[in-house]
Amino acid sequence: MVTKKVVVIGGGFGGLNVTTSLKQTSVDVFLIDKKNHHLFQPLLYEVATAAISPGDIATPLREILRNQSNAAVIMGEVIHIDKCAKKITLGDGENIDYDTLVIAIGARHSYFGKEAWEPFAPGLKTVNDAEQIRERILLSFERAERLKTFAGKDASLNFVIVGGGPTGVEMAGAIAEIAYKTMTKNFRYIDPSKAHIYLIEALPSILPMFPPRLARIATKTLEKMGVKVLTGKTVTDIHANGIHIEDVFIESENVIWAAGNQVSSLLKSLDTPLDRSGRAIVESDLSLPGHQEIFVIGDAARVDTKKGKTLPGVAPVAMQQGRYVANLIINDFSKENRPPFCYFDKGSLATIGKFKAIALFWKFQFSGFFAWLIWALVHVMFLIGFRNRVGVMLDWGAVIFTGRRGVRLITQPIDKEEKETQNSGF
Amino acid sequence: MVTKKVVVIGGGFGGLNVTTSLKQTSVDVFLIDKKNHHLFQPLLYEVATAAISPGDIATPLREILRNQSNAAVIMGEVIHIDKCAKKITLGDGENIDYDTLVIAIGARHSYFGKEAWEPFAPGLKTVNDAEQIRERILLSFERAERLKTFAGKDASLNFVIVGGGPTGVEMAGAIAEIAYKTMTKNFRYIDPSKAHIYLIEALPSILPMFPPRLARIATKTLEKMGVKVLTGKTVTDIHANGIHIEDVFIESENVIWAAGNQVSSLLKSLDTPLDRSGRAIVESDLSLPGHQEIFVIGDAARVDTKKGKTLPGVAPVAMQQGRYVANLIINDFSKENRPPFCYFDKGSLATIGKFKAIALFWKFQFSGFFAWLIWALVHVMFLIGFRNRVGVMLDWGAVIFTGRRGVRLITQPIDKEEKETQNSGF
Repeated sequence: MVTKKVVVIGGGFGGLNVTTSLKQTSVDVFLIDKKNHHLFQPLLYEVATAAISPGDIATPLREILRNQSNAAVIMGEVIHIDKCAKKITLGDGENIDYDTLVIAIGARHSYFGKEAWEPFAPGLKTVNDAEQIRERILLSFERAERLKTFAGKDASLNFVIVGGGPTGVEMAGAIAEIAYKTMTKNFRYIDPSKAHIYLIEALPSILPMFPPRLARIATKTLEKMGVKVLTGKTVTDIHANGIHIEDVFIESENVIWAAGNQVSSLLKSLDTPLDRSGRAIVESDLSLPGHQEIFVIGDAARVDTKKGKTLPGVAPVAMQQGRYVANLIINDFSKENRPPFCYFDKGSLATIGKFKAIALFWKFQFSGFFAWLIWALVHVMFLIGFRNRVGVMLDWGAVIFTGRRGVRLITQPIDKEEKETQNSGF
Repeated sequence: MVTKKVVVIGGGFGGLNVTTSLKQTSVDVFLIDKKNHHLFQPLLYEVATAAISPGDIATPLREILRNQSNAAVIMGEVIHIDKCAKKITLGDGENIDYDTLVIAIGARHSYFGKEAWEPFAPGLKTVNDAEQIRERILLSFERAERLKTFAGKDASLNFVIVGGGPTGVEMAGAIAEIAYKTMTKNFRYIDPSKAHIYLIEALPSILPMFPPRLARIATKTLEKMGVKVLTGKTVTDIHANGIHIEDVFIESENVIWAAGNQVSSLLKSLDTPLDRSGRAIVESDLSLPGHQEIFVIGDAARVDTKKGKTLPGVAPVAMQQGRYVANLIINDFSKENRPPFCYFDKGSLATIGKFKAIALFWKFQFSGFFAWLIWALVHVMFLIGFRNRVGVMLDWGAVIFTGRRGVRLITQPIDKEEKETQNSGF
């Protein structure tokens, strides 16, 4: 098997690491993505909560690869993969053939069959998602202020985050900071600190990937910040007015979905075994059964470790898998000579709020300021680009020292009925 | 006339300056805006050309006024003004009565009766406008690369800016920098430096508000940067495929409108004399004829100076008018005791590109690096908020020293036919 042309689908952590690891080799790489940028997803909740700008955590793929002449970026959507003819098809009908294909398409959120909930409980995967959630959060306060100003009535300022994983915890903590710190003195008729923030988790504990002691610390920290943590509770319905959690109804126009992942239906067309979340069940070399020239990595792949655990959908896994696959391509290993992929777990981090995080490294557990410091350093370190790093640190500095969140932009009118009219003045 | 309640419509430079100048007085101020933020419009072209983030030049009005307890911000659209009953009506039907009304609603671009051109030649007034133009510019390069990759054909990479005022000049210069500097090495199939950039002006010269010598320098600078400057030419038609300039047709999907202003139709309902651009013709105290309690300021007002000139629609005029009106309110001058508004012209600046600008102060004319330095200092100085200032300087530093523009975000799919599908992977 001699590889000359590698097609990589998806410019996330996995796909980008395959591509950059193939720099200065003799192969041609085609990196295809629906968007033009690599997104640093671990900080996306900071965009959704108005602390940083989308541009701070998104870097154009072309910019990252400008000095890698064997890599071409193609902006487009792959709608079909033909395993036999070894080619992929883009939305416009163009075909690209490949010697080796790397599928690194990530995941969207899953509503476990309740797709009707999506409009009322958006998830957080793209820049658009984050900007929409940001606008919804900010508009809730604006609407409450208007209702109180004109009708003298209190609006229900309830924020509900579904899913107690790291994203859910980060969102809950950040919204608590918005309501209880950022918004002080901003309104004249409502008191934003009377907002209620709920974090809902179906399992008995939030952050189940962490040891119970750290999860308990996180829960207590959230509760101190004003978040109501409801564990062991199942969401039974979500609609325009609010959310039903078993027999409790919470009125809210701000339900945020941070539970469950689902891989694109593109994998379904591959005729290969998938797990319940739509992830491709790959072999120990991350290739598809019977197709040593097709690799699936990152959130789109289901990899079970020897200990019977499944690798989590986090950036370090995708990055290591990307470099691993690039190495197989460079060495042109035949199937039987490929070493199996081994994930080196450097630890886990989850931030809860300003100066508050939990961290797990090997058997060492940290919490509080020191864990937060590690979290902040690791995240800024891995951000691509000097300007982004300094920009994010500046934004964080502003949030930390003044409690203010600078990127509180609403660009849509407050009244959905109102439409932008041409030549309308202000 | 005793003023107790001041309603200000519009949170731009004019409206904001009225409001902040009324701090620590006994009046109540209600500031109404369709958006939740004050926008630093002079740098909006930098957002449209991917150099800085919208959050860098937009600050929430509530944040600016957080320590001014006599000012309340209302997010909403004023749809009617009742001069007799002294009240305004919002989009949802709520009314607010006033003792004094300040109309500071700015202007949108005018197509001189050819509103059908707007979808093909968007103007630049709001964050949404800038983000749309940014996306259009970036997508043109992406589409050209795709066409060349798959069909081997060259796309017409033509950018046409209509209007040779400061905004048009800034846009033309910035797009030249994108095509000829930022995008180098970013593409594998097209050569972005083969793009053509046209600046169209109907008058015999660009930047007519500057002395002919400076305008000539600006023209030569633009031409050196690769911009084709066409003066004395009238646009005859714009449609989806391009623009007709008299008997010349330029194929382009990137026509940008920077010509002409038109004030909101809200003023029409006031039954007061308007000029051709829809601006209210105000008295020497900026009040409406027959209504000493209603002021119109900024781009929405038509003020003629003693020398027979009309004050330009720029930030310094609006800011001085805002402070002037606040002073009248504070001193509660009756109509006959009001001193007339006098504009103190501190000078004019226009930037053309990196290290290139022209400046006019009294009788002193500057061009080149020194003028650019003044331009940069003045603009950063007037930006509201420390974080914004440092953020913008960082972004500029990156653009200047590396030629890269960091905020090159495309968040929409490249193919308009394609739609985002739920649970779609990457």
